[in-house]
Amino acid sequence: MADMFTIKFVLDDGRVVSEEATAGEPILSVARRANVPIDAPCAGNGTCGKCKVRIESGEVLGERDKHISKKDFADGYRLACQCETKGAATLLVPQSAHAWQNRIRVADFSSARAQESFMAMKEALSGEKYRADDAFIGLTVDMEPPSESDATADRERLVRAIAKTLGTDSEHISIALHTLRKLPEVLRENDYSAGVLIHKEGGPGGVAYHIIDIAGGEAPIQVGVCIDIGTTTISAAIVDLNTRDFLATGSVGNAQIRYGGDVINRLVESARPGGVARLRDAVTKESIRPLVAKLCEAAGIGPRQIVRASIAGNTTMMHLFLGIYGNNIRLEPYVPAFFGVDRIRGSEADIGIHPDADVLLAPSVGSYVGGDITAGTFAAGIAGNEGFSLFLDLGTNGELVFGNSDFLMTCACSAGPAFEGGEIACGMRATDGAITEVVIDKDTMEPSYKVIGDEGQLPVGLCGSGLIDLISGLFEAGTINAKGKFIAEGERISVDEWGISRYRVVAADKTLTGNDIYVSDADIDNFIRAKGAIFSAIVTMLKSLDMDMDMIEDVYLAGGIGSGIDIGNAINIGMLPKLPLERFHYIGNTSLSGAYAMLVSDKARERIEGLADGMTYLELSAVPGYMDEFVAACFLPHTDAGLFA
Amino acid sequence: MADMFTIKFVLDDGRVVSEEATAGEPILSVARRANVPIDAPCAGNGTCGKCKVRIESGEVLGERDKHISKKDFADGYRLACQCETKGAATLLVPQSAHAWQNRIRVADFSSARAQESFMAMKEALSGEKYRADDAFIGLTVDMEPPSESDATADRERLVRAIAKTLGTDSEHISIALHTLRKLPEVLRENDYSAGVLIHKEGGPGGVAYHIIDIAGGEAPIQVGVCIDIGTTTISAAIVDLNTRDFLATGSVGNAQIRYGGDVINRLVESARPGGVARLRDAVTKESIRPLVAKLCEAAGIGPRQIVRASIAGNTTMMHLFLGIYGNNIRLEPYVPAFFGVDRIRGSEADIGIHPDADVLLAPSVGSYVGGDITAGTFAAGIAGNEGFSLFLDLGTNGELVFGNSDFLMTCACSAGPAFEGGEIACGMRATDGAITEVVIDKDTMEPSYKVIGDEGQLPVGLCGSGLIDLISGLFEAGTINAKGKFIAEGERISVDEWGISRYRVVAADKTLTGNDIYVSDADIDNFIRAKGAIFSAIVTMLKSLDMDMDMIEDVYLAGGIGSGIDIGNAINIGMLPKLPLERFHYIGNTSLSGAYAMLVSDKARERIEGLADGMTYLELSAVPGYMDEFVAACFLPHTDAGLFA
Repeated sequence: MADMFTIKFVLDDGRVVSEEATAGEPILSVARRANVPIDAPCAGNGTCGKCKVRIESGEVLGERDKHISKKDFADGYRLACQCETKGAATLLVPQSAHAWQNRIRVADFSSARAQESFMAMKEALSGEKYRADDAFIGLTVDMEPPSESDATADRERLVRAIAKTLGTDSEHISIALHTLRKLPEVLRENDYSAGVLIHKEGGPGGVAYHIIDIAGGEAPIQVGVCIDIGTTTISAAIVDLNTRDFLATGSVGNAQIRYGGDVINRLVESARPGGVARLRDAVTKESIRPLVAKLCEAAGIGPRQIVRASIAGNTTMMHLFLGIYGNNIRLEPYVPAFFGVDRIRGSEADIGIHPDADVLLAPSVGSYVGGDITAGTFAAGIAGNEGFSLFLDLGTNGELVFGNSDFLMTCACSAGPAFEGGEIACGMRATDGAITEVVIDKDTMEPSYKVIGDEGQLPVGLCGSGLIDLISGLFEAGTINAKGKFIAEGERISVDEWGISRYRVVAADKTLTGNDIYVSDADIDNFIRAKGAIFSAIVTMLKSLDMDMDMIEDVYLAGGIGSGIDIGNAINIGMLPKLPLERFHYIGNTSLSGAYAMLVSDKARERIEGLADGMTYLELSAVPGYMDEFVAACFLPHTDAGLFA
Repeated sequence: MADMFTIKFVLDDGRVVSEEATAGEPILSVARRANVPIDAPCAGNGTCGKCKVRIESGEVLGERDKHISKKDFADGYRLACQCETKGAATLLVPQSAHAWQNRIRVADFSSARAQESFMAMKEALSGEKYRADDAFIGLTVDMEPPSESDATADRERLVRAIAKTLGTDSEHISIALHTLRKLPEVLRENDYSAGVLIHKEGGPGGVAYHIIDIAGGEAPIQVGVCIDIGTTTISAAIVDLNTRDFLATGSVGNAQIRYGGDVINRLVESARPGGVARLRDAVTKESIRPLVAKLCEAAGIGPRQIVRASIAGNTTMMHLFLGIYGNNIRLEPYVPAFFGVDRIRGSEADIGIHPDADVLLAPSVGSYVGGDITAGTFAAGIAGNEGFSLFLDLGTNGELVFGNSDFLMTCACSAGPAFEGGEIACGMRATDGAITEVVIDKDTMEPSYKVIGDEGQLPVGLCGSGLIDLISGLFEAGTINAKGKFIAEGERISVDEWGISRYRVVAADKTLTGNDIYVSDADIDNFIRAKGAIFSAIVTMLKSLDMDMDMIEDVYLAGGIGSGIDIGNAINIGMLPKLPLERFHYIGNTSLSGAYAMLVSDKARERIEGLADGMTYLELSAVPGYMDEFVAACFLPHTDAGLFA
């Protein structure tokens, strides 16, 4: 047996994680085995540069590469995926490496515009069609205390009183075991007056009432949570099920990021021994549980008060959330384990909410068109339009839905994490410190920019909308060419020893981290491939329907790219089709607002299930010519410049 | 803080359990804290003498008492409840002290007679009225493998195939999450052919099909378990739900015995901090799980193949089994937490069976008339008789049901564990080694006896039926008087230093344990109080109905007293009323055969629920004159000898 030694990882919160290793193991593998949160969006290919660690003591084997400056290398910085163990060592994991998953944001609506679109969902559901369903009933019941002449058991006493209040028969009422366990004490400590929370379950045959919680005095408040599980970002909102009001909202990075930035790398990891459980734990225990707990704290409730959850996410995220082997999603003929699921309880979902809570999942349509899109299509409202609409969800995967009240067609493309700042050296998601808008002076090449956050917030990095503006501005200013390569010189432009050019947006002394914020031609290349994937998907889908771009009456944009998206600039770089600007609408996180709709309205849920059943799925890779379209779209704005003239 | 030291308990299976203690703690308390299985039927009152331990090293503080001979005391034997810690010590826990719970008996029908009565239950259910319910359906389904033109998800593919086979709509079919987790692998490893086990759930509104298990090839076998949770003994049978055949049967002692022999002491313990969980763990983890596992082994199945369980037991046992606070059962006005419960899943019951298994509980009628009696009343069949019948369940609690097809009245009395050998120095339950029949020669006072077990089985102790014969024989021979005190002298009779007389049934050299088997006047006194409780309950109930003993046309005897019970002798000692012998029927463990009926037939379960609703509960302690009746019955045969003339 090989000699074992210990690798210690020191996290920025002071925790030290030790793991036994043998010589020659990649540091990233050791870190993953020990569950050390190191970002690796590129899944260890050495391309993203996010997995930096610093040697505190001991030695590791590995050369310097383009992601590490000479000074940083001398200071002990290494990419965890590009160096190997040699002997015992202590490695510092810098805050930046796992900032995404540690940072929980409460009330993280990135702009008033996004919040408005979310509130619009509430408004849209206020009509008769999506009225309250009364799925949960809160009651206060008073009982006669037991006596020698009435020694009926506690459960039967409670059920009798509820039956009388509801005007139903005792046999239609049942009680959860964990509630029964509380019953003797609650009744005796509250003079036989109790607040009960009842879940009304109805079929064509009749209604059943299930008592899921009990407390002394008032009936427990009825609270739900809607969650959008994105590949990169998880967003959630705590909702009062009676008033449909938001009690708290927020987001957190998906801790699965250390297994890769896109769904393919996650699926590969999940297929390894124990992989399904590891990926499930990362999203449930490390991401959703802490997020929900924090939001509950903000809302002033306990997580066990959450009696219903609705979840939307792409097909892979849904599999990994439930701990279901999903690797067939990425293997021909691309078959998921499920599109929809049946009743799941809070205890099964393992996210810390009420054990009897109903957990609802938005249904998927295909391996790459998931519940985020079916829920999002509802939220976008395109199925109600007579004219043709295009719904675009710009996340790590890009998904498209096109159609009207008569038909809906959907397809997906792999944009990569660039829209959410992944695989971009100074990229980040649209949260505090993100540069969300940039204008480049054509003459001086000097930038001006806006940062998300409170007055005085120093910039940290670039989010998707900022990148669009930046690339568009550099292109307009003639700083980069149609291939995204730097062709100008200037004070802000430099070339490193690897021959990679970069444009400095903010100098180190004006950033929060003390490092330059820049964009390199490697970043621009990543971004161009992302925008090319989107544009070529739009072209291919319309061609398959024998339709023209002009026939699109409305384009609804959603996703984590940031609400600051400048449509004109997105058209300039050939990401969106050249249509009149008024046809475009940024509608925020539709996956989350669709999940919200499912949470508060059974009618909305039924409608989403109907939409899923009715969508036609187009497998892009099976369409002849799609790859050619993609290659043609990987230019600024396009090889066929006439499309954007 | 007081000085801590370690008490080590050495069990006869070699396990050593260490527990920290301070000076002056009762050894039994330390043992309980450490979960050391020491029997204490008298709950630590020093009356039963069952909690003997032997000092191996160190010292404990305590005087000798009547349960410890001088020689044994010198050898280091002590009663754990009557001595205290002084410092570090190592104590041997002799096999006899925890033999009851460790000994799992497979196929423990104590006689052919009991087995016959059990098989009769199967026969009785074979009519049209209790025909098979098809609650579980096993199917083998073949599917088309996925292809480019049919990339339907696994779940939807399976559901589609099942819907076609059953001729129903897909939307009536659901799949359990844990089954969905197995699905991708099962389908791909078995060429898209799978055996599924479906639970059919029906209401007036329609039928729903829930897929609870899946395997490659054949459909999983449908197996259930019925369990009688007695205060002293737990019995169970594994049953093929299709054929209704018994695959294995057996029994084990209830490990709760270390918290007391009767329900009152168990309830007292359960009301202490953490008590409910301790008592629940004792019955589920220590008793039922190992018993079920052993029976499954005998039946050649895995415990997770058990898809339905039915449980009968007294009201206290049902509470402690589910982990529900039941202490109000013993406090005026004697109110249990529940009579019946709603759907409980295997995962909630925590007995190692299928997580989605239906766990059915026989309903209770009152604090001291539980599911063992409602199930037993069904098994006894008395509600179908035109004439009046008396059903007697002789366990640690004695329960009575009297009536006919028009009405049923029920009551309970505390007989104590004497019928099952508890609180009797050489008592044991009716299993291998138990002396089940005794004849005393009137002239010589010499006994002859029968022992349960294979040819050549040496005797271990006396079970209930043996005690009846023995006491009746000693009384007939004039060896004891009407108060149960020894009045004769002889070679077999001796008096110890405490003035307690005893009659030696078997000399030490002819027993398995190497100790004398005897009965003392203290034992006889305990037994007389047990039989007096039963007889006075019968008298009181009939008086409350203004009826005579003669009107009882049939007496059905059930319970752990042993099938060897000699009715004539039981009448002789005044335990049963003097009626013609042919009116008496021993019908074995009716709680278990009733649970069996519930397991295999939903119609039988409905009938048992109906019986529970229709029974009138008589609270004996509230009937004037009951205590007088009890005192009058605590003689051999009775103070009113005319009743037995």
